[in-house]
Amino acid sequence: MYVSKLAFRTKKENPSDEFSPGAQLLVRAGFVEKNFSGVYTYLPLGLRVLKNVAALIRKEMDAIGGQELLMPALTPKAIWDISGRWEVLGDILYKLKDGQDKTLSLAPTHEDVLSAIMVHHLSGNDRLPIYLYQIQNKFRDEPRAKSGLIRTREFLMKDLYSFNASVDDLNKFYEIVKEAYVRIFKACEVKAYVTQASGGTFSKENSHEFMVESSAGEDRVLVCSECSFAKNMEVVNDEKQQGCDECKKSTMQEIKAVEVGNIFKLGTKFSEAFGLYTTNEEGDKVPVVMGSYGIGLGRIMGTIAEVSSDDHGLIWPTVLAPYHIYLVPLEKSGVDLGNVTEIAQRIYKDLQESGFDILYDDREKSAGEKFGDADILGIPLRLVVSEKTLKENSVEIKERKTGKITLVPVGLVTEFVGHFMVSGSQYVVN
Amino acid sequence: MYVSKLAFRTKKENPSDEFSPGAQLLVRAGFVEKNFSGVYTYLPLGLRVLKNVAALIRKEMDAIGGQELLMPALTPKAIWDISGRWEVLGDILYKLKDGQDKTLSLAPTHEDVLSAIMVHHLSGNDRLPIYLYQIQNKFRDEPRAKSGLIRTREFLMKDLYSFNASVDDLNKFYEIVKEAYVRIFKACEVKAYVTQASGGTFSKENSHEFMVESSAGEDRVLVCSECSFAKNMEVVNDEKQQGCDECKKSTMQEIKAVEVGNIFKLGTKFSEAFGLYTTNEEGDKVPVVMGSYGIGLGRIMGTIAEVSSDDHGLIWPTVLAPYHIYLVPLEKSGVDLGNVTEIAQRIYKDLQESGFDILYDDREKSAGEKFGDADILGIPLRLVVSEKTLKENSVEIKERKTGKITLVPVGLVTEFVGHFMVSGSQYVVN
Repeated sequence: MYVSKLAFRTKKENPSDEFSPGAQLLVRAGFVEKNFSGVYTYLPLGLRVLKNVAALIRKEMDAIGGQELLMPALTPKAIWDISGRWEVLGDILYKLKDGQDKTLSLAPTHEDVLSAIMVHHLSGNDRLPIYLYQIQNKFRDEPRAKSGLIRTREFLMKDLYSFNASVDDLNKFYEIVKEAYVRIFKACEVKAYVTQASGGTFSKENSHEFMVESSAGEDRVLVCSECSFAKNMEVVNDEKQQGCDECKKSTMQEIKAVEVGNIFKLGTKFSEAFGLYTTNEEGDKVPVVMGSYGIGLGRIMGTIAEVSSDDHGLIWPTVLAPYHIYLVPLEKSGVDLGNVTEIAQRIYKDLQESGFDILYDDREKSAGEKFGDADILGIPLRLVVSEKTLKENSVEIKERKTGKITLVPVGLVTEFVGHFMVSGSQYVVN
Repeated sequence: MYVSKLAFRTKKENPSDEFSPGAQLLVRAGFVEKNFSGVYTYLPLGLRVLKNVAALIRKEMDAIGGQELLMPALTPKAIWDISGRWEVLGDILYKLKDGQDKTLSLAPTHEDVLSAIMVHHLSGNDRLPIYLYQIQNKFRDEPRAKSGLIRTREFLMKDLYSFNASVDDLNKFYEIVKEAYVRIFKACEVKAYVTQASGGTFSKENSHEFMVESSAGEDRVLVCSECSFAKNMEVVNDEKQQGCDECKKSTMQEIKAVEVGNIFKLGTKFSEAFGLYTTNEEGDKVPVVMGSYGIGLGRIMGTIAEVSSDDHGLIWPTVLAPYHIYLVPLEKSGVDLGNVTEIAQRIYKDLQESGFDILYDDREKSAGEKFGDADILGIPLRLVVSEKTLKENSVEIKERKTGKITLVPVGLVTEFVGHFMVSGSQYVVN
């Protein structure tokens, strides 16, 4: 992609209506545009990151046996009345009436909708386990939308629902999802604490939240400095203490945190309300045991913007970056004496053929402006081709994250980039 | 994918609340589930088709210079008041209030939202042309939702918007989009008539609709039997007659049709309302010239279900099919004397490694039931491995569309399938 063709450009000034550093950078770099409080547009660069988050999550969900479906946002009040959640969810529900005076809401989560579907499709024990997930827009009328993408009113969420024949099966799958979540956040290169939390309106049992330390967060979490055991402040008095011996000697430290994911054991609350039954080994009719597992895609993106940046801009992990490489050909004073353009073009094409996504800065701008844009966009590698580098038959490669600069022979650029992309992450690019 | 693992199964009975044959088949085959009138869930098989439609459209949009973004559904009334469309769109708009008593609507289209965004990003002629598209959920309070996926209240749409510096540039791009649409519908293997239509509320100029003949459609179109020139009945008295000489001698025949796509020249209606200006070659400040181009993804899927099926079920074009191959190992009376399972498994793995998506029917069901499911799902190729076929060291391959059966040597299966997938469509699989 030629930088001159990008529909949106970087901005010098911070937006006046964003307050956290990450949100300011996402707007300045042209990744998102605020439509109104808590509602955002993903501009092309931002959408590329969001799609990479989605691909990463899909890969892990498919690997643990999840099957993807897509449920609607529009839901009739009657569905929520079955579980009693029309009242419980309260003001967070966007409510509306259609032309036939039917009361609808925009779904903030889909336990109820999916339970109502599964009633028509479960019959007999041989159907279980079933694991269904979607990546779909949720709507929540948040009274305090803030911090850019971290707390929004319309947001893309991965929500997985498990249907098991027994509590034992649920408990096993719950641990499998927990491990998948750990892999997802590791690939995103954020340190997410697996945090003991309350079951909320769902369950009496504890749930787990995945918490990332950030000043843009709204949760308070106690973390043990010895074993990384973490618990949400809301369950600080919970007697079921876990963690190491050190935890009990008050080594727990408080962090303000962003919740990037959560997992709940729903038990039989929804299956009993909606009539989801199966037959156990003794031949008895028993309610299906359910679980619910969420990750906010935009929230991951917003959190990374908060915790992974410097004075020059964003710093994306390789697996999520909108482009892998920012390629800058530097022709001296507009006169290309050293075949800079020719060689830069050849490198551009070679790298594309090897499967890398590249921004080629073809604009008539100063080197400083081009380098500034490469930095603020947070592209993992910046390649500079100039008369100076070509005198050594080389290309200058700078790693965004570490600032490390290497002079790489032209013939070895693809190999160097390939090695960086693989070793920089456990995921192979593309 | 093992058929025993599919979360949803085929049904024998037609749903009582679907009336068109295609909608009935989509429900019976487990592709979609109706949540309530005009609102559907895409079950895993249906979502795979929907994603294939999306991939096909993205490829064509990217090829003509489109950049993808993602706008929100929630929109404040104030945006629609700028263009006057709060009144014009009327009852089709879902309206709601948030907790702060702000009046919102769920966007049924995004000319207004995108114009409001672009005001902050256009400066000077060097920014144009800009072509932006999204694949995003639209909401329309249709009084008469009917025919399954063809007219729904919440639906995925590809909407492309063009921003040009002159009417000439718009006219050129309009023709480029028209050709891209022709390629998209050709790849979907549906005959879509490029139909002259009114500009609607957008423009005084004519627009074009892409119309597919189907009894499930709601539009009436006149088509010339000589040259395929088509015009919507709503513009039948329009004086700007096009088409061949024969058209004028009343060779036009009426078809009832489904509109699967449309393209509009918006002119300067929105740019003037929202203040989108550029500088022309003479240095004058002039309004940007816009176009708008839509395709309904679910509607394409619903239309194909209507026009491409037989008594046995759906018939998907290769490029959209949820899986390429339905593989049936037939062990005689449950005793596998001829290594049927072993060879079927080897073929399954070989084909997967070659990039094909395969359903492997591992259920303990009769051959008739398995063949019935292969047919109703509409998978392009059915492969049968049995003692009988293995006596000839072969596999039986049946083409869903033509019913043609070929006995193919085991060692040539991958080659045969590969050739079929390529020649059956202009798009190479995966």
